[in-house]
Amino acid sequence: MTDPEIEMLASSILDMARAHGQMIVTAESCTGGMIAAALTDIPGSSDVVDRGFVTYSNEAKNQMLDVSAESLDRFGAVSEAVAKEMAYGALVNSKADLAISVTGVAGPGGGSAEKPVGMVCFGLARQGEMPISETVQFGDLGRAHVRTQSVRHALKMLRSALLS
Amino acid sequence: MTDPEIEMLASSILDMARAHGQMIVTAESCTGGMIAAALTDIPGSSDVVDRGFVTYSNEAKNQMLDVSAESLDRFGAVSEAVAKEMAYGALVNSKADLAISVTGVAGPGGGSAEKPVGMVCFGLARQGEMPISETVQFGDLGRAHVRTQSVRHALKMLRSALLS
Repeated sequence: MTDPEIEMLASSILDMARAHGQMIVTAESCTGGMIAAALTDIPGSSDVVDRGFVTYSNEAKNQMLDVSAESLDRFGAVSEAVAKEMAYGALVNSKADLAISVTGVAGPGGGSAEKPVGMVCFGLARQGEMPISETVQFGDLGRAHVRTQSVRHALKMLRSALLS
Repeated sequence: MTDPEIEMLASSILDMARAHGQMIVTAESCTGGMIAAALTDIPGSSDVVDRGFVTYSNEAKNQMLDVSAESLDRFGAVSEAVAKEMAYGALVNSKADLAISVTGVAGPGGGSAEKPVGMVCFGLARQGEMPISETVQFGDLGRAHVRTQSVRHALKMLRSALLS
């Protein structure tokens, strides 16, 4: 993880979270652990991060994060409904105050007309608030770039949440 | 994840695992998701990786991977006993055939005379076999290098297991 923007974002998130006494948890599908890796790249991250979930399959999303089979069936794994359930499930299955989730089509395969390569859904959940979600169409930038852009976007959502 | 050696190792592991019909699960402490990220960096990794556990705190190791409080108390989080329990726990809490775990002192803080910065314990568990473990003293290379070397070592253990 040597991307300087990601390192700067991760560092500022950890500082803000620490200052507010907030713990952060991650629930990752297409980024496969990259957000947790970016946060734990910063020394002293154990004050803020105590765990992360890499839920690549539907079964893992259901078993580790209690994402409902109904949502997975009806909306698909790459959907705002599932992103919200992932973030909420990460919050419930940890002691964190703030959860970020990512589920998307990193490519090169797996795209469709409705959900093309580069479509990524994000969820954010906080204790005592309704989860929120966003979808970004990064376009077919190649797997590595879709994943890196997804990490950046997720970190920016965390930063905004900590600033609000 | 642009380290070419890591990318090459991850790619060969996925090819071998796929050829043998083996699923792989990760249980990471000091690497914080980097091994899962390296494996899922390769297109088509969902055939082989369905989930990963990032268990940074003792509580997470206990709750997500059933690592015993006794082992954590008696041997400490950075120990071969805990590495073996992490790998075994990842196997039990997934449908994988092969599990790799990492727990170490990435630094810069957290080192002691007995467990210096750069000391990393690895565990490997397979269905139907006793878990094995290894300790490597990477030395105080700096946090980023200790983590990257740990990913490389973990991937080499996975490759050896798949070759045997």
